[in-house]
Amino acid sequence: MEVSSVYVQGDGSEHDRPAHPRAFLTGEDRKSDHLRVGPYVDFPVSVVLPAGGSGERTGLQTPKQFCPFLGRPLISYTIESFERVSWIQTIMVVVAKENIGLMMDIIQQFQHKKVRVVPGGSTRHRSICNGVVALGEEGRPAADKPKVVIIHDAVRPFVDEDFLYKIAVAAKEQGAAGAIRPLVSTVIATTSEGYLDHSLERAKYRASEMPQGFTYDVIYQAYQRCTESDFEFGTECLHLALQYCGTNAKLIDGPPTLWKVTYKRDLAAAESIIKETLSQSACLITGGLEVGVTLGKFLQKAFGSLDMELNVTPDLMGDNVRYLLKDWNFILVSVSPSCLSEVEAILTALQAENRALLNPAVIIWMHLSGTDEPSTSGRPAESAALISLASTAKLRNILLYGIRLHQPERSVMTSGRTQPQHFSHNQTKKTSEDHLTFVLFAVMYEH
Amino acid sequence: MEVSSVYVQGDGSEHDRPAHPRAFLTGEDRKSDHLRVGPYVDFPVSVVLPAGGSGERTGLQTPKQFCPFLGRPLISYTIESFERVSWIQTIMVVVAKENIGLMMDIIQQFQHKKVRVVPGGSTRHRSICNGVVALGEEGRPAADKPKVVIIHDAVRPFVDEDFLYKIAVAAKEQGAAGAIRPLVSTVIATTSEGYLDHSLERAKYRASEMPQGFTYDVIYQAYQRCTESDFEFGTECLHLALQYCGTNAKLIDGPPTLWKVTYKRDLAAAESIIKETLSQSACLITGGLEVGVTLGKFLQKAFGSLDMELNVTPDLMGDNVRYLLKDWNFILVSVSPSCLSEVEAILTALQAENRALLNPAVIIWMHLSGTDEPSTSGRPAESAALISLASTAKLRNILLYGIRLHQPERSVMTSGRTQPQHFSHNQTKKTSEDHLTFVLFAVMYEH
Repeated sequence: MEVSSVYVQGDGSEHDRPAHPRAFLTGEDRKSDHLRVGPYVDFPVSVVLPAGGSGERTGLQTPKQFCPFLGRPLISYTIESFERVSWIQTIMVVVAKENIGLMMDIIQQFQHKKVRVVPGGSTRHRSICNGVVALGEEGRPAADKPKVVIIHDAVRPFVDEDFLYKIAVAAKEQGAAGAIRPLVSTVIATTSEGYLDHSLERAKYRASEMPQGFTYDVIYQAYQRCTESDFEFGTECLHLALQYCGTNAKLIDGPPTLWKVTYKRDLAAAESIIKETLSQSACLITGGLEVGVTLGKFLQKAFGSLDMELNVTPDLMGDNVRYLLKDWNFILVSVSPSCLSEVEAILTALQAENRALLNPAVIIWMHLSGTDEPSTSGRPAESAALISLASTAKLRNILLYGIRLHQPERSVMTSGRTQPQHFSHNQTKKTSEDHLTFVLFAVMYEH
Repeated sequence: MEVSSVYVQGDGSEHDRPAHPRAFLTGEDRKSDHLRVGPYVDFPVSVVLPAGGSGERTGLQTPKQFCPFLGRPLISYTIESFERVSWIQTIMVVVAKENIGLMMDIIQQFQHKKVRVVPGGSTRHRSICNGVVALGEEGRPAADKPKVVIIHDAVRPFVDEDFLYKIAVAAKEQGAAGAIRPLVSTVIATTSEGYLDHSLERAKYRASEMPQGFTYDVIYQAYQRCTESDFEFGTECLHLALQYCGTNAKLIDGPPTLWKVTYKRDLAAAESIIKETLSQSACLITGGLEVGVTLGKFLQKAFGSLDMELNVTPDLMGDNVRYLLKDWNFILVSVSPSCLSEVEAILTALQAENRALLNPAVIIWMHLSGTDEPSTSGRPAESAALISLASTAKLRNILLYGIRLHQPERSVMTSGRTQPQHFSHNQTKKTSEDHLTFVLFAVMYEH
């Protein structure tokens, strides 16, 4: 193992998107760890995830870790971020006693496999301590006791594997390691009367963030030795490691996505990151049609200019089934006016893979009409069938949309779950292709 | 003036919504300052708004102060927040030379009246200094030179009048005043090798935010006396006032809405606040219909439970025209199957008031059908008329939607700009009223 690689700092990129585009969402990684290329940690690592916060700063009744995003609680995204990392063993979630039932329901509904739940204490440090102690009491052979414990927040869902690797390895080498970020605001010291005493020189200070990593012995001993006052008022595990074990933590620059969902506005921000990440790529199924291939070429360019990926494939059979396991958005080209069997086939395949368990999948059935038939002809029966199919799919977390494109008139008509007809108001100003791209993105982002 | 009121701290509310629900959007306040009830500052106050940032941390090409939200650049929202405060005289916007043309376009398009533009310097402090100097050179009689200068960020759009009042008065009394917020993360000092040196005791420190206020003389002298190094590397005006004028600023707890749009995720957060604020109230026009009054009573309860306001009025004439000047969302009840003249009347009235200059207005034409006519009957012609009206309205920043409610069948059909037909999939599970509420909110939030 190259120790030097551990000390690589952030790459200076300040984008919000997780470093791995689908870092928190690729359920298939749980099935196919052997496919992963990347650093591997060869010592046992487990996680303590305190999730006892009351959410008072969001102004909402539901604690923010349990607020739903696209139908799934925030904490499930956080758990998923750890669960997909093959070298992480146990995720010890610490929740307030009154939320244990809720937590167990979440684990069952989203089929989390590595999670154990322990009741929290009256403060954050007591909760973390409960989690650390529980990790040591797992009844496993001593060799399996985690060498390193990573401590994270339930409300920081977007942590990626590369950063966890840096923290885990640095923690093993140094005894402790923690994520830091530059200060966004100047920090000032106040007098007791509420006046400026002095301001700190920004360059010398950092915001301490999560995740943090510790060797099991360091964090365990720190909690054994610390005082009731630490348990009651302390906030910083790194400080306990320094004070009670003499361990100066290694500090590692983290990406901005490590930020903590704190205020109500952060809920909107988190949702925007989830949606953007789910919309990073799509799969266009041409059905072997020439018009589908042409459309695919055009859309690939449009997607590319937005830093998004479009995979074009004639079908989802054989090797092409990989797109079914990789993408969340499917665009199905059709020229047959009323045949929905292709849609049904994709629905069946997605359901067979349990693909929409963690995130909604989107199917856009794009019907290209080459004739001069008026836009309303034949619609009612077909729309009704599509709506009926969409209703059933919705129950399985699959969102089905229909777009009808009348090529001769260069107009975009839509049917199905949503009908963003307003896009067609500008049709004289845009080419129908630009127009179509716009509609596709609008639909993908809406889900 | 009660000096004691200046020192009132934040009310502990940590919600993101501005303290005044429509603090940043009521264009009519510019016309009707005499109606405002609240504290008034009886000395001249002007603003310096540095807007030279490059937006590199959002990862976008457009500097974030120029990013559009509902069609309007962020900086226009910030300017509006100051422009609506009657006792603020001039808003000196400092922009990079290459953006002066863009800035002038924004001022013209959104009819900002109090703004002057000066070119920025190579650093933040040089830009602010340019603004301060320009305020002193306005060629006015000396009595009009601002007594207090408020310095703010272009990318903190949600500052409300009450807080500006606190800052202005404290600045006059103390020479300097600044907004502070509790620290979200622990602040740590690092060693030069990247290890933890020590962590700061959170309770003794605060994040220094904006706005800040200074007497003109203090900020002017501070910039006269400070060094090139301060101009180059300094970040904190409060620090300059302390170091060069011996002025210890009064620190005042600010609301969380003062936060700075820094990362890409903050763009989504800002948009969510704008949308939520615009959706805080609506006006239902019953047309004098009994069914409209009944619907109004039901919806008032539904809105109330969501902390939203619904004003119910038979029309917008006479005294009721006040709703036209207050609300951004209008729900128009109709039983006539094809008459759109009521819609046209509201459109005309909104346009006459230039009501949609700063924010999009929404009109939802709700057609209650009491007959058993099938849902598609009579639709094409009526839909076409509504779509045509919607297209024209859109050009004036007014979003027109149509919802057709078939009472006997308890189904919700929609037509017009958007057709959220997918809501009707669950119609067997919800009452049509709940359903309707849901559709209304979805439409209001969508704009």
